[in-house]
Amino acid sequence: MGDLYAGVDLGGTSFIAIVADKKGKVLGKSDCVTTPHAVAEETIRSIAEHVRLAARDAGVKMSKVRAVGVGAAGAVDPRNGVVVRAPNLGWTDVPLSKLLGKQLDTEVVLGNDVQVAIIGEHAFGAAKGTKRAVGIWVGTGIGGGLIVDGEIDRGFRGAAGEIGHMLIKEDGPQCSCGRFGCVEALASRTAMERDVRAAGDASIVPRLIQEHGRDRMTSSVIAHALEADDKVMKEVIARAQHYLGLLAGNIVNMFDPEMIVVGGGVAQRLGYSFVEPIEEVARSRFLRPDPDHRVRIDYARLGDFSGALGACALARNAT
Amino acid sequence: MGDLYAGVDLGGTSFIAIVADKKGKVLGKSDCVTTPHAVAEETIRSIAEHVRLAARDAGVKMSKVRAVGVGAAGAVDPRNGVVVRAPNLGWTDVPLSKLLGKQLDTEVVLGNDVQVAIIGEHAFGAAKGTKRAVGIWVGTGIGGGLIVDGEIDRGFRGAAGEIGHMLIKEDGPQCSCGRFGCVEALASRTAMERDVRAAGDASIVPRLIQEHGRDRMTSSVIAHALEADDKVMKEVIARAQHYLGLLAGNIVNMFDPEMIVVGGGVAQRLGYSFVEPIEEVARSRFLRPDPDHRVRIDYARLGDFSGALGACALARNAT
Repeated sequence: MGDLYAGVDLGGTSFIAIVADKKGKVLGKSDCVTTPHAVAEETIRSIAEHVRLAARDAGVKMSKVRAVGVGAAGAVDPRNGVVVRAPNLGWTDVPLSKLLGKQLDTEVVLGNDVQVAIIGEHAFGAAKGTKRAVGIWVGTGIGGGLIVDGEIDRGFRGAAGEIGHMLIKEDGPQCSCGRFGCVEALASRTAMERDVRAAGDASIVPRLIQEHGRDRMTSSVIAHALEADDKVMKEVIARAQHYLGLLAGNIVNMFDPEMIVVGGGVAQRLGYSFVEPIEEVARSRFLRPDPDHRVRIDYARLGDFSGALGACALARNAT
Repeated sequence: MGDLYAGVDLGGTSFIAIVADKKGKVLGKSDCVTTPHAVAEETIRSIAEHVRLAARDAGVKMSKVRAVGVGAAGAVDPRNGVVVRAPNLGWTDVPLSKLLGKQLDTEVVLGNDVQVAIIGEHAFGAAKGTKRAVGIWVGTGIGGGLIVDGEIDRGFRGAAGEIGHMLIKEDGPQCSCGRFGCVEALASRTAMERDVRAAGDASIVPRLIQEHGRDRMTSSVIAHALEADDKVMKEVIARAQHYLGLLAGNIVNMFDPEMIVVGGGVAQRLGYSFVEPIEEVARSRFLRPDPDHRVRIDYARLGDFSGALGACALARNAT
């Protein structure tokens, strides 16, 4: 049996497959835009094909691939390898591990995309070597995950790590979950876009979004607006960082992790300049002082391959 | 060696010593009001004496006591058995385990009073049999503790469980820690007393405090005011319960425990009527629905001996 792993980062509109060694070195890759409204079986055949292409790109036989990991955007049942609900793919209760495993004749391990990315940061990235870490993933929403002793700590019902729905401002805006006051409604990229758009023409962001040919404020748009010194964007991101700092402080006071990793598109694009103000606010909230910065707060390091490398780590850890 | 345990609940102005069997049955007890400004050695001699008296009350020899547990109000270093800081006792860096162990010729295990009470609830009380529980202790402040696999989960720096300083209302009142927005400043007994007193003569509480011959709003005063249908007290406690519910919801969304135990004087005095509204608010915040109430929220059950029985459980678990 081989000592390589394949990892698939399965998003709502595209996926990427890679083959990597056990230390997280990417050896080959292949990506694909998914066909909208395709039946699940068709997409899974396509995933299998691109895993094989990634192996070919790496110059290795599929027999060298010990296991395949998949990180899927949506609700998953990791124990049974089932994608419970992935709205962007139109999937409900798809037994991905079983179907893809049959196609590739290997074990397929499944995880939620955010938790898989956090596993990746623990295996190969910013949180490498830590025993107790928490990931804060800032994107369309705010996801998270707890890592204890090298594994995702799923809690009693498998529901742990839902830090995006921590209430920190009761009279805050309504969240996608329907409740009020969640940090997701204050500091996600979606929340930032809402606040920037509320400023109308005072910000260059709406124009930048058009220029980028997108319908939403991507991380690139945020970065360009900041480079252009857009006042509204600066205020909005500072406010989001403030709330993320309060979130991180709450996490430390309750859970006392060794490390907090801030990931997702915005953190990936802006790096430490995104995390620095978050860290400052968080530290101001630590009940137990930490003058030597034993608790680290840093940004995710795996970049474009974070999801796929996390999926490799998931496969590695499970086999 | 014996199969009994001694437990000491060491408060700021008094302590109680008990001897119990490994199932938490109290066999003997002895309590004592501490001498103000006594040197630590003197108080420790007195503790040793009352542990012996508790054994005598139980009708057993000290040789039957396998180990002694102590729960101390203040900051402790459980690993080294040192009371780091106990302002009410005037103690700083007192090696309690060593000194008391010498007096009694037994192993002495030390813990913080709140965490010890939570250990007790897990060993003998409301959280018995759970693998993952969180305690919310409402008193002068709000303390807490995480239990994982039967033991206090202390986190990376030994600072986990400081849920009283979770920010849930940024523009809230100032907390004893100096920060703003902590749940402790919104829902502790101290916070409730502040809010009741702000209503002046509209509440009977100030008069009840005088009648009880105390200088603060004890749990008994709260209970009597509620029995007398005091409108201010009812509003104030409802608001505190609301914030405690938001706290409990945040804990569940992040940590997904099997159980939340609400303890401390107020919970002990009011029982389920205190916890019911907390549970209702908490459940409204659960991101993962829990129609079958798999996550339980209940009040602490050990009553007057909770601290001392917790100390026995601490000793039992450590030996």
